[in-house]
Amino acid sequence: MSGVLYGIGLGPGDPELMTLKAARLISEAAVVAYPCLPGAESFARKIAAGMIREGTIELAFEVPMTPERTPAQMAYDKAAKEITGALEAGGDVVVLCEGDPFFYGSFMYLHARLSERFTVEVVPGVTSVSAASARMGLPLVARNEMFSVLPAPLEDAALRAGLDAADSVAIIKVGRHLGRVRAVIEGLGLTKRAIYIERATLGEERVLPLCDAPDPAPYFSMILLTKGADPWL
Amino acid sequence: MSGVLYGIGLGPGDPELMTLKAARLISEAAVVAYPCLPGAESFARKIAAGMIREGTIELAFEVPMTPERTPAQMAYDKAAKEITGALEAGGDVVVLCEGDPFFYGSFMYLHARLSERFTVEVVPGVTSVSAASARMGLPLVARNEMFSVLPAPLEDAALRAGLDAADSVAIIKVGRHLGRVRAVIEGLGLTKRAIYIERATLGEERVLPLCDAPDPAPYFSMILLTKGADPWL
Repeated sequence: MSGVLYGIGLGPGDPELMTLKAARLISEAAVVAYPCLPGAESFARKIAAGMIREGTIELAFEVPMTPERTPAQMAYDKAAKEITGALEAGGDVVVLCEGDPFFYGSFMYLHARLSERFTVEVVPGVTSVSAASARMGLPLVARNEMFSVLPAPLEDAALRAGLDAADSVAIIKVGRHLGRVRAVIEGLGLTKRAIYIERATLGEERVLPLCDAPDPAPYFSMILLTKGADPWL
Repeated sequence: MSGVLYGIGLGPGDPELMTLKAARLISEAAVVAYPCLPGAESFARKIAAGMIREGTIELAFEVPMTPERTPAQMAYDKAAKEITGALEAGGDVVVLCEGDPFFYGSFMYLHARLSERFTVEVVPGVTSVSAASARMGLPLVARNEMFSVLPAPLEDAALRAGLDAADSVAIIKVGRHLGRVRAVIEGLGLTKRAIYIERATLGEERVLPLCDAPDPAPYFSMILLTKGADPWL
């Protein structure tokens, strides 16, 4: 009998923001697997470190970040093959995932390769969006308001339409797009409603009004924007 | 010196989906406070029950669900007054919140009343949206896709525009709006992309294709819809 594949959300970075279930499954795991950039420490493993017991087998798989898709696809093919070996040997495999596995998470690439053949269970995690609003002390969305998540690499027109339609917006993956995104927000007269955060819940966290945000921003950065259209209090 | 007010996200319902931090703060709390409907058990307290130690002071505050706002506003005024008393006495107060406190959560009403006077810390939680996608085994959103949350009470035109613009959508607060929402989705030819879930992560959970969902649906129900516009795998 094959093992079960677990995709475990670890939350935004503070290890205490992982769920009880994630902590239990990691500490019970015979095999943990996680992605990392070539030559770099795995952020997912860093979050989970305190829960990994000695003697646990670790499968680190390097995923290159390139504009072309093929190198990453090959990396996931290779990781899926290694994980298949462990599952066929009868052990469960716990894949460590930053944030929530199915919310802009790379676990979907393993899920696509393995879910037809093996039993998969996903353990949801706290998203960086929830973490950002908590750290800002900013109620994100309420009642019958509409909320949208817009990746910063979207074109200006898509960002503008998304910002226009929703009552609250999270703009993720800001990084080098900070200046362009800020100009779009300024054009809509919404700069004063926007707050910038980098490395939410980590030691180096910074929260700033959007007008003071660094350009370019680091990779782990986000903008939250709330219009407060219906401040029923 | 006054105590600290904690707004603690408990996650979607399964007690094991609360964070380590939530579990620690609840078990250390001298005072826990939570909302409930008049005469009903508090769902938030039920999730947290295993973490509340004997001897903890409990402040249950009844919040009526009425179309008018005044009764609920008065209920939050009263709750804020009681919590103020406990904080001024120097103890911390832990407010138990279903899901994530700032994501369609009622904690914002206490936050609005108390955050100028007291130190407030919000502990983010796993949202029902993340829980639903995990339980469906449905990757929700990836790469540069746009994601939106639409409350079902929105008018048809707003639902249609929101469904049209985003790559993935969560429709929350479905309940008695199920039939109308389903007609809007059908009108867009998206019924086959939509999955219905009720009571995600609880014992009575049900996952169904949207076409088989009950009408009316229970209060704790949701529809996830993904277009899979860019299935890069």
